[in-house]
Amino acid sequence: MIGFLRRWLAPALLALLTACASEPPAPTPQSQLPSWKAGPSREAIIAFVQAVTQPGPDYVPPAERIAVFDNDGTLWSEQPVYFQLQFALDQVRAQAPSHPEWKQQMPYKAVLQGDSAALKQLDERGLLQIVAATHTGISTEEFTARAKRWVASARHPRTQRAYTSMTFAPMRELLDYLRAQDFKTYIVSGGETDFMRAWAEEAYGIPPEQVIGSTFVLNYEMRDGKPVLMRQPKLEFNDDGPGKPVSIHRYIGRRPILAFGNSDGDLEMLQWTAAGKGRRFAGLVHHTDAAREWAYDRQSSIGKLDRALDQARAQGWTVVDMKTEWRRIYPFEQP
Amino acid sequence: MIGFLRRWLAPALLALLTACASEPPAPTPQSQLPSWKAGPSREAIIAFVQAVTQPGPDYVPPAERIAVFDNDGTLWSEQPVYFQLQFALDQVRAQAPSHPEWKQQMPYKAVLQGDSAALKQLDERGLLQIVAATHTGISTEEFTARAKRWVASARHPRTQRAYTSMTFAPMRELLDYLRAQDFKTYIVSGGETDFMRAWAEEAYGIPPEQVIGSTFVLNYEMRDGKPVLMRQPKLEFNDDGPGKPVSIHRYIGRRPILAFGNSDGDLEMLQWTAAGKGRRFAGLVHHTDAAREWAYDRQSSIGKLDRALDQARAQGWTVVDMKTEWRRIYPFEQP
Repeated sequence: MIGFLRRWLAPALLALLTACASEPPAPTPQSQLPSWKAGPSREAIIAFVQAVTQPGPDYVPPAERIAVFDNDGTLWSEQPVYFQLQFALDQVRAQAPSHPEWKQQMPYKAVLQGDSAALKQLDERGLLQIVAATHTGISTEEFTARAKRWVASARHPRTQRAYTSMTFAPMRELLDYLRAQDFKTYIVSGGETDFMRAWAEEAYGIPPEQVIGSTFVLNYEMRDGKPVLMRQPKLEFNDDGPGKPVSIHRYIGRRPILAFGNSDGDLEMLQWTAAGKGRRFAGLVHHTDAAREWAYDRQSSIGKLDRALDQARAQGWTVVDMKTEWRRIYPFEQP
Repeated sequence: MIGFLRRWLAPALLALLTACASEPPAPTPQSQLPSWKAGPSREAIIAFVQAVTQPGPDYVPPAERIAVFDNDGTLWSEQPVYFQLQFALDQVRAQAPSHPEWKQQMPYKAVLQGDSAALKQLDERGLLQIVAATHTGISTEEFTARAKRWVASARHPRTQRAYTSMTFAPMRELLDYLRAQDFKTYIVSGGETDFMRAWAEEAYGIPPEQVIGSTFVLNYEMRDGKPVLMRQPKLEFNDDGPGKPVSIHRYIGRRPILAFGNSDGDLEMLQWTAAGKGRRFAGLVHHTDAAREWAYDRQSSIGKLDRALDQARAQGWTVVDMKTEWRRIYPFEQP
């Protein structure tokens, strides 16, 4: 009997004790956000997450922990031009051989000649023309394949790195931290939905069904006996400004409890989130770091942050000063 | 030492053994689908689910196990009129006191007088007029509150039961069975999205963000300093026929591996699902039971099943004969 106990039970007990003892110490919120310096933004985030996830008056059940993030300028950089516009410009160049008429035709001519003065003067209609010409007239599958190829090969003019490596390390940590607390994280962006879906899961861990953006009209057609969804050169929905709370309701059907943006185009999303019952978090990434990223706000043509900054200050929303509060900007920097 | 072992370790070992022994036997797929009789449909469902969830050539990772279901006629009944139309008619009556002009105005006059002959002759425009008048001009929150109140109190003319008790027991079991195998279940229906969201989670376990339907235009407005989403009397998207694969791509961004419908309005959704790479399941609920539910197909003005039935037979899709294959129709019947 003793032999049996010693041989079988004692090791079992030891294994049990070892299993308990070798568990690593529970991670602290601070250790889950290593790229954030101690500061008001990190403290506000942690205080909010603890309040809504721990028993108490602000507790929110997991199913209602909806967090929405703008993409351009909030999760990755957006300078010197929106990365999706860079994709469109590159596509014009790639498709030029099958469009000889573009050599004489604005706005394509300006793209092909690298005429940056003319490009800077393009109005919204000209830009939309370039985006439509490069984003439509093809099936959803073909478009996704093109976007994936571009993301895999294109390099940013300043860093010479892949665009997806210019996502913000602190925000990626924040997404992980929220998901570890049973938040469901969504992108709600002016960018085109399928363009973002082509790389968002790998870059942010956000699956296709949680990517909400602007859309072109789709047509269901049969081609060679197989159904395809053809992308039409007609904007269906502009997911910007007041369009953001609309698309949030459309796709999610619940009001978020946390929203993060960086520009006036995010103002209505932040208002809509903050106006819900119970405790809410509204945050802005403020681009203040000309050395490591870019510094711009009220006067910028891209990612203009003016009215939303005033409202954030008036309402006590969190404004992240990336220069002083982020230990690093991009994942490729030393932590 | 022996005393210690006997006192502490032996009970611990016993508890461990008991814990293992008292685990109930693993449920079989058949036991998870008790309202389905043994038959070709149940066998086809189980064979498909086992093929895509167990190791083998047809295996599909959990994230890609997307299952889409039409609602009217597929998850609940749709006779003698679509339940949502019944809601609209009841709303006309409820709101009539504040619309005295309706007494003289078609189509409201026909509703208020209970003129079923005139109601039957309403064309799509007349129906849409009734739906728009009762579904729009209010905020999303007010509409949801009205839909919830109606669902809680309204009774079906034939069964005198709540409409949500006229969901199909076999389909509710199928939803549970699929979710237990890590499928993500969606509604993709011609019904209006917010109407379905008001009760779909309780009835089917399907959360708001997995309910896709037809939509009215929404406007973001400030009322008394608070943001609201106002429902506009303009149809934004008709989620029927070719609209279904479009909305599936729009909202989910992945092609389903399983789709279930019951009418020609589901044909394109079934085609789109079936045309994907790898093993797929396309199913139709065939209303064949005039005694327990209703019997209708090719000639019906509601839930017409004609072209889709031909295609299902030609393609070898599953056609559920509810009369012979369902042990019970509704949850309130004896199992």
